[in-house]
Amino acid sequence: MMPFHELISFDEAKKIIMRETKPIKRCEEINIEEAGERVLCNDVIATINIPGFDRAAVDGYVVKAEDTYNASFRNPKRLKIVGKIFAGEVASKKIENGEAMQIATGAAIPEGGDAVVMVEYTKREGNEVEILKPVYLGENVSKKDEDIKKGEKVIKKGSILTPAKIGVLAALGIEKVKVYEKPHVIIAPTGDEIVKPGNPLEKGKIYDINSYTLSTLLKPFANVVLNDIVRDDEKEIERILDREADYIIFSGGSSVGERDIFARVIEKKGELLIHGIALKPGKPTIFGKIGKTLVFGMPGYPTSCLTNAYTLLLPSVKKMARIKHEERKIKAKMAEKIISTIGRHQIYPVMVKDGEAYPVFKESGAITSMSQANGYIEIPANVEYVEKGSIVEVTLF
Amino acid sequence: MMPFHELISFDEAKKIIMRETKPIKRCEEINIEEAGERVLCNDVIATINIPGFDRAAVDGYVVKAEDTYNASFRNPKRLKIVGKIFAGEVASKKIENGEAMQIATGAAIPEGGDAVVMVEYTKREGNEVEILKPVYLGENVSKKDEDIKKGEKVIKKGSILTPAKIGVLAALGIEKVKVYEKPHVIIAPTGDEIVKPGNPLEKGKIYDINSYTLSTLLKPFANVVLNDIVRDDEKEIERILDREADYIIFSGGSSVGERDIFARVIEKKGELLIHGIALKPGKPTIFGKIGKTLVFGMPGYPTSCLTNAYTLLLPSVKKMARIKHEERKIKAKMAEKIISTIGRHQIYPVMVKDGEAYPVFKESGAITSMSQANGYIEIPANVEYVEKGSIVEVTLF
Repeated sequence: MMPFHELISFDEAKKIIMRETKPIKRCEEINIEEAGERVLCNDVIATINIPGFDRAAVDGYVVKAEDTYNASFRNPKRLKIVGKIFAGEVASKKIENGEAMQIATGAAIPEGGDAVVMVEYTKREGNEVEILKPVYLGENVSKKDEDIKKGEKVIKKGSILTPAKIGVLAALGIEKVKVYEKPHVIIAPTGDEIVKPGNPLEKGKIYDINSYTLSTLLKPFANVVLNDIVRDDEKEIERILDREADYIIFSGGSSVGERDIFARVIEKKGELLIHGIALKPGKPTIFGKIGKTLVFGMPGYPTSCLTNAYTLLLPSVKKMARIKHEERKIKAKMAEKIISTIGRHQIYPVMVKDGEAYPVFKESGAITSMSQANGYIEIPANVEYVEKGSIVEVTLF
Repeated sequence: MMPFHELISFDEAKKIIMRETKPIKRCEEINIEEAGERVLCNDVIATINIPGFDRAAVDGYVVKAEDTYNASFRNPKRLKIVGKIFAGEVASKKIENGEAMQIATGAAIPEGGDAVVMVEYTKREGNEVEILKPVYLGENVSKKDEDIKKGEKVIKKGSILTPAKIGVLAALGIEKVKVYEKPHVIIAPTGDEIVKPGNPLEKGKIYDINSYTLSTLLKPFANVVLNDIVRDDEKEIERILDREADYIIFSGGSSVGERDIFARVIEKKGELLIHGIALKPGKPTIFGKIGKTLVFGMPGYPTSCLTNAYTLLLPSVKKMARIKHEERKIKAKMAEKIISTIGRHQIYPVMVKDGEAYPVFKESGAITSMSQANGYIEIPANVEYVEKGSIVEVTLF
C-alpha cells in the first residue's frame, strides 16, 4: 500500500498519452446503412456519372426547343403528343419536329428531345398540347453528369460519413464501404471489493460502477468488451494483459492498493509511462504501453475515474478512432465560492443553469457528483480558490 | 401528374408536424450497458445506501481518534497493530483503545474504529505503528450514506442516461433499466425508377439515395426498418400503410408523380394534413396521420429530402423520442451572393470555413450539394438575395 510519490503534471500526462496514441490503420468493410459516423478508409472515386442520363428537372412536355420559339399565351404552339415517360422508363421512340412527349421529373430525356416545357405552361387538347411559352435549348433538363462526374474524387479518405456522404455512396450504387475499425477496448473491472450489478452485495463490498461509466462514454467510438471482474491478483492481471486490444483499461473499486500490482506488471511486460498525476480528483492514475496496446489503470473512485475518462482517456480513444475531439466550452458565473487544492490541477464538476455554474462535487468516492453535473471547470495547480461571481469556462460533457 | 397548388408556409408546416407529434409512452427494459443516451422511463429511487457502510477514505490506520489526541512528530503515539483490512473485507475483530488496524481506501471501518490516520502520518515499527499527527472523530471516514441515501430520488423520469447516470444505476446494483422505446420508423423507398445499391443499373434508373440518408440521420434516435423498394402502386403503398409503426416515411426518387398516390391513399385511410410546402427545396412534401401513425411523403430529390429531414422530420422524431432538439447555430460571413426565390422559404446548404459561409447548392436533384455542406442558412420567403459579405446564421448539421 505505497502511495504515489512522484506525480507528473496534468499537462505532461496529457502530452504523454496523446504522443503514444496512434490513429488506427486497420480497416473493415461494412454495409452503408451501418456506416453513419464512421471514418472512411479510402478515397471514393466515382465509377459512374450521376444522374447517368439527361433527365427532366420538372414535370411537363419534352420537345425540340426550336419548335417553341414563337409560342406565347396568345399564340400557343400546338405539338402532337407521341407518348408518356415516367421516371425509370425509357422512351420507345425519338422526338421529331412538331412532336412532344409527356415527361415526369427524373425521367430520361428521349432521343431528339432537348428541352422540357413545365406543365404549368402547357394546355392539353386531346392528342395535342398547346405550348404557352418558349423554352431555350436544355431548359429544365439536368445533364447526365451534373451531380457527379465519373472519375471524380467525391469523398476523401478520413472523412466522417454523414447522412449526405452515405447518400453519395448510395448514389454511386456502393453497398459496402471500407471504414477504419473502431479501437478495440477491453475494460477489466478489478478489485476484491467489487460486485457485478444484479448480484447480492455482502458487507464491505460495493457494486462495480466504473466499467459502466467508462463503457457508456467510449461505446460511440470504440468496440468495448466488458470483462468479468478480475481479482487483485498478479497472475489474473497478467492474463488480461496478454489479450489483444488497442486499449486495456483497469478500473478498480478503490484507490491505491491494487495499483501497485498494475505498475509492477506493466513495468515487467512493457513500459510504465505515468504513475500518478498531480490532479484532483484522479491522482492514482497509471498509464503504460505493452507492445502496441495502451494500458490505463484508472482511479477506483467513480468521480476520479470518470473525470479522468473525460479529460485523458476519451481524447485518446477519439484520436485513435480518427475522430476530431471538439470540446464544447461555455462561460458561466460561479454561483458559489470553491476552495481548491494547491499543487494539484483540479477538475471540478459543475451544473450550469441559467448562466450560473453550481459546484456539485461531493467527494471523489461519490458518483452523484458527476451524475448531477453537466460539465466541469479546470482549476490550475497554483490557484487557491475560485470566488463566487467570477466568470469560469465550463467544458460541457 | 398534378403539381402542388395550395402550398402552406414552412412555419405552418413545422407547427402542424410538431402538434401531431406525441412523446412516446411505451417503455422497454434493457441492460444498463446498452442504456447510454436512452431516456429513463421511471424515477429511480435508491433502495440502498451508498456506500452502504462507513469506509476508509484514504490508506492508513484505523484507530480510536481519542488515542491520537496528543500525537506529534516529536512525540508519536504508539499503537498496537491488530490486523489489516483490504477493500471488500470485513474485519474479524473490534478495535480497542491502544490498537490500530491497517486499512485500505474503500475498506469498511471495523467496529470500535472511528477515524483513519493517513499512511503518510504514520511509521511502522514491527507490530506497532507510530501515529505522528492527531485525527479528529470521523476524520478520513466516508459515512455510509454520504453518496446516496436509501429512499432518495436519484434520477428523474425523462432524464437522458449519461455515463454518470448509468454509474448511479450500477452503484445501486441495478442491471436492467426501463427506458422509453425508440420511435419505430419504417422507411419505404418508392418509385419505379429506383434501384437498391449493389444491383445493376438499367438506363433511366437511379440508385436509391434517400432511404440511406434518412436512416443514417434517424438511427441514433429511432428503430429504423428499411423496407424493400415499393413500386408506384396504390395497393403496394396501402399494404405498407397497414403496418404498425410510429412513422412511415416514403422516400421517392423523383418529384411529383407518385406523390398523388400517397395523398390519395392517406386521405382514404386517415388525415392528409400537409400537401406541399412553400419551401425550396422541399416543396413536394406530404404529411398526414393514419390512426396514431405519422406518415411523411418526402420529396424525391436527395437534397430536398435531406434538408426536409433535418428541418421537419428530425425535430419530430426527437420530440417523440423525448430528446431535446438543440440546433447548433453559428454566425458566418457570406462568401458569395445568393439569389433566392421569392415566395418560398429557402433552406440553403453552405460550407462554413474560417468564418465564411460558401454556398454549395447545385440543384435539388444533386446529392453532392449536401455532402459538401456542413450546415444551412434559411432565407425567408420575402427575401430576394443575400449579399456577399453579409452576416448569416448557419445551422450546423
